[in-house]
Parts: sequence; structure tokens; C-alpha cells
Amino acid sequence: MKPDAAKNVKHTPLTPEDDIKFMKKALKQAEHALKLGEVPIGCVIVYDKKVIGRGYNKRNTKKTALAHAEITAIAGACKKLGDWRLDGCTMYVTLEPCQMCSGAIVQSRVDRVVIGAANPKAGCAGSILNLLKVPQFNHQVEITNAVCAEESTEILQRFFKDLRIRNKESN
Amino acid sequence: MKPDAAKNVKHTPLTPEDDIKFMKKALKQAEHALKLGEVPIGCVIVYDKKVIGRGYNKRNTKKTALAHAEITAIAGACKKLGDWRLDGCTMYVTLEPCQMCSGAIVQSRVDRVVIGAANPKAGCAGSILNLLKVPQFNHQVEITNAVCAEESTEILQRFFKDLRIRNKESN
Repeated sequence: MKPDAAKNVKHTPLTPEDDIKFMKKALKQAEHALKLGEVPIGCVIVYDKKVIGRGYNKRNTKKTALAHAEITAIAGACKKLGDWRLDGCTMYVTLEPCQMCSGAIVQSRVDRVVIGAANPKAGCAGSILNLLKVPQFNHQVEITNAVCAEESTEILQRFFKDLRIRNKESN
Repeated sequence: MKPDAAKNVKHTPLTPEDDIKFMKKALKQAEHALKLGEVPIGCVIVYDKKVIGRGYNKRNTKKTALAHAEITAIAGACKKLGDWRLDGCTMYVTLEPCQMCSGAIVQSRVDRVVIGAANPKAGCAGSILNLLKVPQFNHQVEITNAVCAEESTEILQRFFKDLRIRNKESN
């Protein structure tokens, strides 16, 4: 799968159209989370223009904070490439990553992260902190913000609106 | 396992002697990593004075950066407690956690982290950053440093010395 594991591999660059196409795939993942009653966040990881890892938030279902969309996608991508280094990979995630997932992105050496909606209260790719660009770390990550931002925000708003209605009904 | 899941549960406090006892268990985990030829870092998670999660670094063996000692220990502890929230838990780890593991500790709401050796080049519990005490996050973690620091440093030094010898021999 990764015959070009040498560091400086250059694939055909991803275009803005590719970014939208792959973010829509991440949004599909978020829909799976929504069906489970989980906060709808989805993620895919792309290598050489192919999806090699996918994930959606399952924190309550799996009863572990490790079941964030990004962590599941990283696990899948590493398995597919047979390597802990995800050089040459781009991650698409519908919500700005938290401190754990931003850390996992740096540790896995993902090249680039494309983000749907910002998370001003807890995001660690520019909102509270930017762990993807700490000069002292041995890896920094390219960031593209606000791709399909409206759809990424809308699915979260839908979830929280439904939650408020359900909570009101049960009180 | 966790009948006292209510937030303000208070267990018998861990004494400095307990800290040494449990850090020695984390060091045993690090020995397992050493045997695999992995950077020797070990971790245990303690709840109500019992070890409920353990892990050691297996990044190369498992071919994923997610196989850090702390992440494996968190996965085990969540499974044992049946909850993504590790309230009431103390983590013992032989080396200061990285950005990913510090993030996972905050996300899992571990109460306290006891650290063996500091990691001045990459640690995120006080060295490069302190992700365990960011006021904007919804959880902060108590930290105790330098418990069995000498043993924790010594096992790492042994690994890197052996690695240098092996590298010299193969050149």
C-alpha cells in the first residue's frame, strides 16, 4: 500500500474540489454518529487521493474518550499503511480537533488537516491553542479551515436542538 | 466496578508510599516495552487503590502512534469502569506524557497524574506546554513529579545506550 514510504513522496496535489469531496465523506461519517445519538463529528484520512481511514464519534457508545472520530480514523489509516507515520496523508474532520486528537495528529505526522467548523470553546487547532503548529514539536501540520463549514455546523446544531427538545420532554 | 460514579466520590487518599508502589508497577510495564525493543515507557491507572489499567509503549510493534503506554492504560481503565470518565483515577507514568497522551488524560478526566522522569524535549505536562492545566479546558489535572525519577530515567538511558551500540555495530 505504501511502496513510496520514503519521506519526500509527492502525490498529485489535492484541489479545492477534492477538499469539498472528501469533507462530504467526513460529513457522511458524522451522520453515522448522529444516528447513534452521539455528537455528530466525522473524519476521513486521504492518501494518494484515496480514503484509507474513517471514523465517527462513538464516545458514549464505546464508553471511552478514545473513540473520537479522528482517533478511529488514525487507527484505520495506520493499519492500512502498516506504518505509525502518516506522511503524505490529509485528514478531513467536520469539527476542529480537541487537544487529544490534535496531539494524535502531530504524533502520527499527518501532513495536513482540513477542518469543517471551528470549535471556539475547545478546539486545539487554532481556537484555544494551536497544537498543530508548536515550533518546539518535531512535526507541524498544514491547516485549511472552513471547508463545508455550513454543513458541518448545521449537523451539530441539529443534534443539540434535538437534545434540548428531548431533555425538555423528559423533565 | 464503579457504583460510586457520582462525581464527588472520595477514596482513601494515596500516600507517598502508595505512589512509589504504583510507579514501580508502571516501571514493570516499561520493562515489557524494553524486551520488545521499544522505547521503555510504562503506565498504570489506579482506582480505589487498585490497578484498573496498564500499558507500555508498543508504537513500532503495533505500527501506530496510538500505542503509547498511557493510551493503552486509558483504554483498559475505561473498559474496566464501563465509563469514558475516569473520575477518581490516578495515572502513574514513567515519562512525562506527550501532547496526545496529555490530551487523552484531560478528555478522560483523570484526577491526577504521577510522573517519573521529565521529558524536557517533548513533554506536555510542564516541559514544552502544560496541557493538564489549561484554564480554558473543562478539566484540569493534579500533577506530582519526580516519583522514582532515577529508575524511570535509568531504564530510558539503558535503552538508548544499547541502541547506539547496536547502530554502531550495524554500520
